[in-house]
Amino acid sequence: MSGLLSSTIKMIKPLDKKAMAEARARQDMLTKPQGSLGRLEELSIQLAGIQGRPIPQLTHKAIITMAGDHGVVVEGVGNWPQEVTAQMVNNFLRGGAGINVIARQVGARIIVVDMGVAGKLESHPRLLSRKVAPGTKNIASGPAMTREQAIKAIETGIEIVNNEVAKGLDIVGTGDMGIGNTTPSSAICAVMTGRPAAEVTGRGTGITDEQLIHKIEVVNKALAVNRPDPKQPLEVLAKVGGFEIGGLAGVMLAASAHRIPVVIDGFISGAAALIATALSPRLKDYLIAAHLSAEAGHRIMLKHLGLNPLLDLGMRLGEGTGAALGIFLSETSARVLAEMSTFAEAGVSERVFGKE
Amino acid sequence: MSGLLSSTIKMIKPLDKKAMAEARARQDMLTKPQGSLGRLEELSIQLAGIQGRPIPQLTHKAIITMAGDHGVVVEGVGNWPQEVTAQMVNNFLRGGAGINVIARQVGARIIVVDMGVAGKLESHPRLLSRKVAPGTKNIASGPAMTREQAIKAIETGIEIVNNEVAKGLDIVGTGDMGIGNTTPSSAICAVMTGRPAAEVTGRGTGITDEQLIHKIEVVNKALAVNRPDPKQPLEVLAKVGGFEIGGLAGVMLAASAHRIPVVIDGFISGAAALIATALSPRLKDYLIAAHLSAEAGHRIMLKHLGLNPLLDLGMRLGEGTGAALGIFLSETSARVLAEMSTFAEAGVSERVFGKE
Repeated sequence: MSGLLSSTIKMIKPLDKKAMAEARARQDMLTKPQGSLGRLEELSIQLAGIQGRPIPQLTHKAIITMAGDHGVVVEGVGNWPQEVTAQMVNNFLRGGAGINVIARQVGARIIVVDMGVAGKLESHPRLLSRKVAPGTKNIASGPAMTREQAIKAIETGIEIVNNEVAKGLDIVGTGDMGIGNTTPSSAICAVMTGRPAAEVTGRGTGITDEQLIHKIEVVNKALAVNRPDPKQPLEVLAKVGGFEIGGLAGVMLAASAHRIPVVIDGFISGAAALIATALSPRLKDYLIAAHLSAEAGHRIMLKHLGLNPLLDLGMRLGEGTGAALGIFLSETSARVLAEMSTFAEAGVSERVFGKE
Repeated sequence: MSGLLSSTIKMIKPLDKKAMAEARARQDMLTKPQGSLGRLEELSIQLAGIQGRPIPQLTHKAIITMAGDHGVVVEGVGNWPQEVTAQMVNNFLRGGAGINVIARQVGARIIVVDMGVAGKLESHPRLLSRKVAPGTKNIASGPAMTREQAIKAIETGIEIVNNEVAKGLDIVGTGDMGIGNTTPSSAICAVMTGRPAAEVTGRGTGITDEQLIHKIEVVNKALAVNRPDPKQPLEVLAKVGGFEIGGLAGVMLAASAHRIPVVIDGFISGAAALIATALSPRLKDYLIAAHLSAEAGHRIMLKHLGLNPLLDLGMRLGEGTGAALGIFLSETSARVLAEMSTFAEAGVSERVFGKE
């Protein structure tokens, strides 16, 4: 394994148990019945453990949205033309997409990355051009990319996070754009969870029953042709993955190495998380699952990852839209822990019976 | 029925179907697969119907947190001393409670109302002193309040909203504080849904199994002693309700009358919604259920109201904390509808097959 990837994995350490214990103790002193903020309390404690401080701080927020194209679209797995990937990247850069709106609301900056868009993108001051190749090859007839390209995709994600850390980064969300990218994500999910393609392949942006049957066949063909070994995550990425999926796995690895919480979006980010956690099982503790996507298979993915999503709003847009909402709730949890008064500070009596 | 209450109910009109159709048409032109923002899309359409404009605006946000005490605490239904109600009101006024933190994050102002706190509250420029009486009477031995007090509580909520509308109000959240108030809420829930007390009585701020059995007995006693008629919502409020519950019902009525969306919090707000929707069934369309509370019975309440909660985070604090998060998501939905580019504006191709 190459230098940057290997050294990043080595940097990923367990959560800080002492900071977590202190955060929990403070939660129990705040002016509310113990546990009454439910998952927000747990989340604040996880954030404390990740950041290694009893009161986590989430001032600098970013969403990294990575785009890539997929050779498998020639199999007719979806309804949208491939040119939409590049068009949507331009939409991100102009601020008109769903992720732009929600990121503005939550106060997160967006980093848009061309990881492997097929179409030509004009240069733009806000676009990171890191094209590994102009789209993957068709996974139904061979590997998506070479092993070197898989490593390059991951290390690109690592380098981007390393640069962002220098600018200030307290929490990061992952996002994706890539016409056809639910197909490689389903293939990765099938390999890594051992579940049949029919269970982990969904309707993506909206396909008919017949189209779904065909898409499942394509996923099965990709698995039969490539025979990826679930114990070899780099091989899985190279054989049935995508450039943005590899890049997002790199984002997760680097963020965890820097003790930065990672809010993962939906199905494509989940596929990246399956690769990243296979490379570093410890990384799982740094992940926050923003939401349960409407995409079939996402539930299986999250269960395999051992993650419980914060939201279930029937969303399936990608881009990081779910992650942005997860960043908001993470900030809520951290602010509650930091800003609420304790019983002593507020002069509020504690419970008289049944003290826990 | 008295003048203000009756005239307010008459002002509540059906949702604006034309605005809803226009909002839906715009959602389908935005640069995303149709329906891919799930419940956020539905929510934006509801908001359009409530406000009567195709693109709803949520600039002025407020949470109305109403406090009241409950005579039933003498039965030993909980673990916290009654003085905590007044202490927590002071905490709200100083900005140290959970609702203060989350309201700051979402940019909502808080209106704190003394609807019937037993303890003496010092005057404070930010406190609305509208004490109907210093706490209700014990519902296990008679009615909580007179019919006149029930009407006064509701009309107080109406007047407060009418005043806030003059200051600018685009969305309102409901919140409560009152030691012991899950007991009357369970009683209201049992009456209005027809379900047994054992199914709709929960652990409130945290009681043991034995205490829960006793609390169920107290609810049953309140129902047996008072025999409230579910067809007479004012009678239900007077017999087994609370001053803050009546006030919140008034908030819901007045907001609906002014075409202002109401984000309801948890179990106590749900009890108020049962009263309010019984007074005006049409009001239901103006309600947004923020979250599913961890309090047993809330699921039954929401099902009876026909509302599907946005969040399920195991919260059970009250104060409006869940409502504040629901206001945030409402704003997300409205901003997406207002700010996202259409396919034509962004130069993005639409789907080539299977156009819906």
